[in-house]
Amino acid sequence: MTQKIRTAILGASGYTGAELIRLLMRHPHVDIVLITADRKAGQPIENVFPHLGGEGLPDLMAIDDVEWAGLELDVVFCALPHATSQRIIKGILHDTGHGFIDEMVIETPEDYANAIQGSVKVIDLSADFRLRDADTYAQWYGGEHDALALQKEAVYGLTEHYREDIKKARLVACPGCYPTAALLALIPLLKQKVIQKDGIVIDAKSGVSGAGRSLKEGNLFAEVSEAMHPYGIAAHRHTPEIEQELSLALGEDVLLTFTPHLVPMNRGELETIYVSLEDGKSASDLRELLQKQYRSEPFVTVLDEGATPATRHVRGSNNTHIAVFEDRVPGRAIIVVVIDNLVKGSSGQAIQNMNLMFGLDETLSLEQMALFP
Amino acid sequence: MTQKIRTAILGASGYTGAELIRLLMRHPHVDIVLITADRKAGQPIENVFPHLGGEGLPDLMAIDDVEWAGLELDVVFCALPHATSQRIIKGILHDTGHGFIDEMVIETPEDYANAIQGSVKVIDLSADFRLRDADTYAQWYGGEHDALALQKEAVYGLTEHYREDIKKARLVACPGCYPTAALLALIPLLKQKVIQKDGIVIDAKSGVSGAGRSLKEGNLFAEVSEAMHPYGIAAHRHTPEIEQELSLALGEDVLLTFTPHLVPMNRGELETIYVSLEDGKSASDLRELLQKQYRSEPFVTVLDEGATPATRHVRGSNNTHIAVFEDRVPGRAIIVVVIDNLVKGSSGQAIQNMNLMFGLDETLSLEQMALFP
Amino acid sequence: MTQKIRTAILGASGYTGAELIRLLMRHPHVDIVLITADRKAGQPIENVFPHLGGEGLPDLMAIDDVEWAGLELDVVFCALPHATSQRIIKGILHDTGHGFIDEMVIETPEDYANAIQGSVKVIDLSADFRLRDADTYAQWYGGEHDALALQKEAVYGLTEHYREDIKKARLVACPGCYPTAALLALIPLLKQKVIQKDGIVIDAKSGVSGAGRSLKEGNLFAEVSEAMHPYGIAAHRHTPEIEQELSLALGEDVLLTFTPHLVPMNRGELETIYVSLEDGKSASDLRELLQKQYRSEPFVTVLDEGATPATRHVRGSNNTHIAVFEDRVPGRAIIVVVIDNLVKGSSGQAIQNMNLMFGLDETLSLEQMALFP
Amino acid sequence: MTQKIRTAILGASGYTGAELIRLLMRHPHVDIVLITADRKAGQPIENVFPHLGGEGLPDLMAIDDVEWAGLELDVVFCALPHATSQRIIKGILHDTGHGFIDEMVIETPEDYANAIQGSVKVIDLSADFRLRDADTYAQWYGGEHDALALQKEAVYGLTEHYREDIKKARLVACPGCYPTAALLALIPLLKQKVIQKDGIVIDAKSGVSGAGRSLKEGNLFAEVSEAMHPYGIAAHRHTPEIEQELSLALGEDVLLTFTPHLVPMNRGELETIYVSLEDGKSASDLRELLQKQYRSEPFVTVLDEGATPATRHVRGSNNTHIAVFEDRVPGRAIIVVVIDNLVKGSSGQAIQNMNLMFGLDETLSLEQMALFP
Repeated sequence: MTQKIRTAILGASGYTGAELIRLLMRHPHVDIVLITADRKAGQPIENVFPHLGGEGLPDLMAIDDVEWAGLELDVVFCALPHATSQRIIKGILHDTGHGFIDEMVIETPEDYANAIQGSVKVIDLSADFRLRDADTYAQWYGGEHDALALQKEAVYGLTEHYREDIKKARLVACPGCYPTAALLALIPLLKQKVIQKDGIVIDAKSGVSGAGRSLKEGNLFAEVSEAMHPYGIAAHRHTPEIEQELSLALGEDVLLTFTPHLVPMNRGELETIYVSLEDGKSASDLRELLQKQYRSEPFVTVLDEGATPATRHVRGSNNTHIAVFEDRVPGRAIIVVVIDNLVKGSSGQAIQNMNLMFGLDETLSLEQMALFP
Repeated sequence: MTQKIRTAILGASGYTGAELIRLLMRHPHVDIVLITADRKAGQPIENVFPHLGGEGLPDLMAIDDVEWAGLELDVVFCALPHATSQRIIKGILHDTGHGFIDEMVIETPEDYANAIQGSVKVIDLSADFRLRDADTYAQWYGGEHDALALQKEAVYGLTEHYREDIKKARLVACPGCYPTAALLALIPLLKQKVIQKDGIVIDAKSGVSGAGRSLKEGNLFAEVSEAMHPYGIAAHRHTPEIEQELSLALGEDVLLTFTPHLVPMNRGELETIYVSLEDGKSASDLRELLQKQYRSEPFVTVLDEGATPATRHVRGSNNTHIAVFEDRVPGRAIIVVVIDNLVKGSSGQAIQNMNLMFGLDETLSLEQMALFP
Repeated sequence: MTQKIRTAILGASGYTGAELIRLLMRHPHVDIVLITADRKAGQPIENVFPHLGGEGLPDLMAIDDVEWAGLELDVVFCALPHATSQRIIKGILHDTGHGFIDEMVIETPEDYANAIQGSVKVIDLSADFRLRDADTYAQWYGGEHDALALQKEAVYGLTEHYREDIKKARLVACPGCYPTAALLALIPLLKQKVIQKDGIVIDAKSGVSGAGRSLKEGNLFAEVSEAMHPYGIAAHRHTPEIEQELSLALGEDVLLTFTPHLVPMNRGELETIYVSLEDGKSASDLRELLQKQYRSEPFVTVLDEGATPATRHVRGSNNTHIAVFEDRVPGRAIIVVVIDNLVKGSSGQAIQNMNLMFGLDETLSLEQMALFP
Repeated sequence: MTQKIRTAILGASGYTGAELIRLLMRHPHVDIVLITADRKAGQPIENVFPHLGGEGLPDLMAIDDVEWAGLELDVVFCALPHATSQRIIKGILHDTGHGFIDEMVIETPEDYANAIQGSVKVIDLSADFRLRDADTYAQWYGGEHDALALQKEAVYGLTEHYREDIKKARLVACPGCYPTAALLALIPLLKQKVIQKDGIVIDAKSGVSGAGRSLKEGNLFAEVSEAMHPYGIAAHRHTPEIEQELSLALGEDVLLTFTPHLVPMNRGELETIYVSLEDGKSASDLRELLQKQYRSEPFVTVLDEGATPATRHVRGSNNTHIAVFEDRVPGRAIIVVVIDNLVKGSSGQAIQNMNLMFGLDETLSLEQMALFP
């Protein structure tokens, strides 16, 4: 690749934005030409994230001041809040000279490829394009979606399961951190019908960076440290996202129990998933199925029997560790998944998708091993 | 009470031992006359726990050097490892001049009261007398029980549910930390048959002090901090203890799923319990039942709808907070329980039992509010 | 004492306010009749601090809605921000029917005692009345003092060194957390001229609760955890306070170096103090002098040679641990002091002063031992 | 470079060993052909460090089982305890067919180059070859040095100040973590005589990984978390190392005060250094001098006035941040330095040296940015 990918990062003052910069600065084919942060507009990045300074990044801009046409962007990473994302992405696609798919006649993959030819590609890290159903979006996110055509066009960016679609996509909606871990474990098991769809319980635990950098009392050090609590019980917005993808995998509606907890650590996400086996299936069957499924994946490891996942083994890396355990209760199994919520659960997976979208080696800039201790 | 209770603490160099001292030193009716720690024998307590120094405690002794007869002990707290506990407790009861109950004719409560009259009372914090069945003990703890008569005599020290038995007991087996939290939530629900006995899942999270002060690589700061992982999946020794008490409460065998996790905090335990409701029952019914059950309990609070328990709200205190949530999945509910594993989950509950056994106000020396932040 | 002390806590939604409540709720002679928090007015305390609920506290009020006259308060703890404190305290003293000292003829202690007879006593935890000099206050706190007469009247609440004055005071200005630790170590050494006044370096480290509960990015968990940094280098407002008291102790101006650091822990404060010895003096001399000074103090322990202070040994308690070490550099010594910043460094010391002001045993409600682990 | 550097890591079960592997596995010119760990001999690395598994590393060996001759090693990283290191390194140099320098006639750099031609290069991370004086070693490390000729030959591996010597060396002694930070700040200042040699105070704070992975009660999570304390006051072994290098830089003996503290974080080291300026010098002079000194260094950044170093800004990276502050006390300045103790303070600097020794770009495999949050 002779020319670098001209890259923008919108929302660069949050943790996912910072993580995108950290990883992309070492990407051999990426050139970051725009970083935005409305409340920090005009400042150098080292004012906001001193660890990212001294590398020649452009100063932060306000989104409304960006002149999109002149930037000749190849890709935009959008790390903005939901609702804002849809508005901005719609605008960018318009301002960079592209109409919307629904205004064209798209009947074949070739039509689509032609339609988006030359368009900037958009990788959205918000929740705005994850849900495929407009009503479900409105119900869980408290308002109508403002870019329905794009919502339809968007490809769900769970790399290991939508790789071919992602390669051809213009707009990729990166999964939430909790769905990433849950779906990597459960999609193959439901698709192959080795577990029952009823009674799935996902007990999730996350480090505090998952809550972002916004100022909330509940995220203060003295509130979180030396403490733990669940939140959003039976009401977390990642639930319909998990159910959507599992229902698609199985071909039937899946309804499940999902409970996230806040853990006093910066990074890391662990999900303990309780499932009922289909008749005649064992925990070993599940393990073997997952090992076969992910054998050649660079970022998913299914552990051998006896090994236990721990968040520290994936800290700072794009890796996923999955293990399956036989329960004492007959006919039941326990699956444990760990990821780094900011890498595989967010910015790392987004870059993995970018690599795919530009025909690059999927692991570029994501090769680093876990930082332990 | 004019005379102080002459008290011994065996195993005073561990965290539960230290916690007993911390609380009992401020008990108006307790006089600590013996503290033991074999590997620290001969040393003043401040060498082992500087925060407990300067209070006039006796130096640590080796257990084998203790002359039990002369101490005129009223109560012994035993914070020794399992297997050791049974041997020591058997010896103490013998050496302080009391035979064993099975060598006497015990037909009525009065017989028992006469038999133990004048005996030292023993409050065991180990696992040795928690399981009522000798085979179950042998199976889970890897060896025959060495004091079967005492195993039968022991009263299970879950204060809120065995209060009357504890008052009259000579030997109380304090529950494990995980069982304490689980049983306070589940016993009333199973007893009243508002939840189903099948499919109960207890996802438990504990601070690191639960692992004790022994030197294991997995308990080093750099291994645990900024990290989280499950352990003892489907194999933790607290499982048969929980099942035993729930089976007793229900009158039928209960088999359940229990998964503990290690969380980077010193203290605190949180259990997220997933249950299926009996037909026609709702989460509100469960909440009301529990609120009614514990209304007059000093150390159990069932939160109103909408409030979420957090370990920081009970840190350092003997309190239990329980909340019930309706799940999105019809017919299912989620129960969250928090305790401080070293207080209500161990030393605090032990002292609560001691207060009962000596006819004192149950809250003595346990009144302190949670230490937050 | 037959009647309870009618007590108000202003600024009860911050950490020092919560700590006052935690401790005073167990005080045998205190009745909390008013708690205020402007932004939480009308709410029960459990909304703001769930660990303090269920104890029958009054709901939070806005300060401006309080009718002071009718409350018949005996004491007011003021845990408000500086500048606000002076305005509110001035108003309270006025509204509860007392003039100001400077409007009266005060020539003898008896005059003062008469003047304040029947007045509500005020214990201020803010910085407003700590500095004795109006210009120094204006210089470091960015504005003129609004209650100069009260500033003069206020007694500096470092209990161990101003005990007699505190007993007779109407208005006590509790020291800052950093000054408390520094002054307990240094006042006796400078007063007795065993160390030199020049070249004193105080390197201070504090847990995050010292920064309060206000929403600042720098106090977010993900910023502070697994991290450390200094702040306010050569510019922290506790510096003139330390210098003021040391200058008074010595009778000469003291100018020193003070650098605070933020440490990823909730509570705890450690100061490492570097001093030059006066000719012929040794570290042992300093230790002996301090041991003699504090021998009968309930809350200051000077450790024997070889023992090292650690914040965990005083966590949650009102204790101070001080140790003196000989440096390798001839003529120099190193002094280490630890306190819990929220207890001895703030609310605990305030209550210690209250006990004095009401003729009570100084240790009431402050007897609890450190919470470790 | 066509052929890979055949590399051994001795002591791979400790944290510095793991960090060497983490970084070297991504080095384009390194092939790790031997990893040793006596107590874990025969095991795959994933048993010891699961985060390093799946990369095709050889199994761990016991050192005594290694057949050095056949390995054709190019470089050995020695992460063994002191005393052991000298014995092993001496043996390796002998067994791989090289005599010792003192048995040859070495009069010119060319003689030395000839003598070590073809020899395996050794990069030692222990303390064994840091001290240049045999007596000082014996005094601080409790025993005679067993490889005095090698002690003389060894080059002190503070890259930025001994670059040319390191390039030509056979044996490099990497500095301790504390000396690395202290010397980077102080060597230029003393060499240029802008600060006084007397009265230097280094107040150092380190994360817990600096204490290694060995089982000590003081390193348990529940002892360290939510706590802080100093250790080795006036007696830490890094003191003579710092003094040695500063004395060399200045040409006069330097004696200073050094106090390390343990901080509840995994990684990170911060030193607050208090110095007296030479007449006429200011903090700005120091800052300018350091900025000039390190302008072209890839891993040392001297911050502009107003910026404050924080360990989180260098976490996981090989970077050093230094800042200079003017003190309020005339004639004094405060210097703050941060590094990651496991990277620049240990394994990263070792690799930086390896790159130099093999004529490679100094930054290879050390380019990653800090991991924040």
